[in-house]
Amino acid sequence: MKIGIIGAGNVATHLVKGLVKAGEEVTVVYSRTLGSAQELTQALPSAAATDSLDFLSAAPADVYLIAVPDQAVQPVLQQAVFPPEALVAHTSGTLPREALSTLTGVETGVFYPLQTFSKEKEVDWARIPICVEASCDAAENQLLNLGRALSQQVVKMAGAERKQLHVAAVFACNFTNHLWGVAQEILQKAALPVTLLQPLVQETMHKAFQFNPFEVQTGPAQRGDQDTLEAHLRLLAQTPQYQQLYQALTASIQTTAGQKADAGKAVGNP
Amino acid sequence: MKIGIIGAGNVATHLVKGLVKAGEEVTVVYSRTLGSAQELTQALPSAAATDSLDFLSAAPADVYLIAVPDQAVQPVLQQAVFPPEALVAHTSGTLPREALSTLTGVETGVFYPLQTFSKEKEVDWARIPICVEASCDAAENQLLNLGRALSQQVVKMAGAERKQLHVAAVFACNFTNHLWGVAQEILQKAALPVTLLQPLVQETMHKAFQFNPFEVQTGPAQRGDQDTLEAHLRLLAQTPQYQQLYQALTASIQTTAGQKADAGKAVGNP
Repeated sequence: MKIGIIGAGNVATHLVKGLVKAGEEVTVVYSRTLGSAQELTQALPSAAATDSLDFLSAAPADVYLIAVPDQAVQPVLQQAVFPPEALVAHTSGTLPREALSTLTGVETGVFYPLQTFSKEKEVDWARIPICVEASCDAAENQLLNLGRALSQQVVKMAGAERKQLHVAAVFACNFTNHLWGVAQEILQKAALPVTLLQPLVQETMHKAFQFNPFEVQTGPAQRGDQDTLEAHLRLLAQTPQYQQLYQALTASIQTTAGQKADAGKAVGNP
Repeated sequence: MKIGIIGAGNVATHLVKGLVKAGEEVTVVYSRTLGSAQELTQALPSAAATDSLDFLSAAPADVYLIAVPDQAVQPVLQQAVFPPEALVAHTSGTLPREALSTLTGVETGVFYPLQTFSKEKEVDWARIPICVEASCDAAENQLLNLGRALSQQVVKMAGAERKQLHVAAVFACNFTNHLWGVAQEILQKAALPVTLLQPLVQETMHKAFQFNPFEVQTGPAQRGDQDTLEAHLRLLAQTPQYQQLYQALTASIQTTAGQKADAGKAVGNP
């Protein structure tokens, strides 16, 4: 299977590295900036770098993976010319497959790796879930095979589920990352090392995936410890942003705890 | 050093296990319920179990660690009789050392292990930071030595800093745990396996402690992706609780991003 990569950012970079390592043939890499595409093809003698979206003239591929920011997908589609019967898939968690439906004469799909990519940090593709969707069974099989070359966890997923997965990932990763930022800032202001929190964070994470997090929730909000809650809000008086965040999360924890208590009553638990 | 443990809950259980494993001598374990104390001393032929807080009559210890819920500390202090010149320390992140100042004729301290303990789950004491504070240098050294028998990370910490550490831990652990609960519920409702998110959560955590989390923040809130934000709020329409949480966290991420942009301008960054 010959693969074309559209984009030269974080996702594209790790896709090229991962695919080449898995023995797949990357034949062309596109970037608006030729130099960026060339950086990715440097180590690949048989791959072409291009800043043209006319893929009829460049080394043709069977599968094109669009790995550009969501808002850059439509501009790419407007200019791109793909070989007939190619399979074109985007790598976005948010965009529906139908975002590609302006393309004619090709199959379309989604090839969404559920991971956060940074250029400087190697990733372990084997452990990255890849969510696949396609316009026909043959295209789906192509994407599943491509996924399995990279990862041990490749799943078929319709657009509606992928949307739910994406919003869940925002809660589980984007929002938690922000909270870690808040925590680290509080520690830094108190001249305490941020590493102090690392073992506790790791243990909390292990528990959260071993049990239902709602069942192992601890802390002042969960136990209704009003003295500590008020003391914490006073400590945060200098940062109203963090006070509001503290209140919003405390309220949500207590809502969940209340619902669990009600559910317990409803089935006759003590 | 002979050690008395007051309490038989999660913290007390892991303290006893950890101290015995480290070769320390636990001479007495108190619980309101004798049977609970006996459970902890079962494997310790030289330790007494007691439901009396009169520690003059039980096997005397040099250091007493109070490992009961915060609100149970005062009731314990009102009844307890300690040998003269004993060192009495609580294990709370929230209570000041001065909470023990009603005691006379003893030294007082704090011995706060920064970890979440569950009875059924073994802990690796070597990696648990222990925060120590005491009423005099000799008592401080006793607690530091006791801490070092358990852990590689023992730090002196005044009450004001411990409070900041505790509020930071609430953000970094209690709040993130709740968000993982929300994420898992969203996945379960969509009939998706919760393990899908685990690699992404782990990678986010590694990044957060390798870099400043605010610098590596990603997601729709960070990039001001209004289309995705609105789509997510519509997806959460059935759960106003999660909608509000989504809005509060999005607002906070954008406030931080705005502050960073302003700070950049102030120092003349582009």
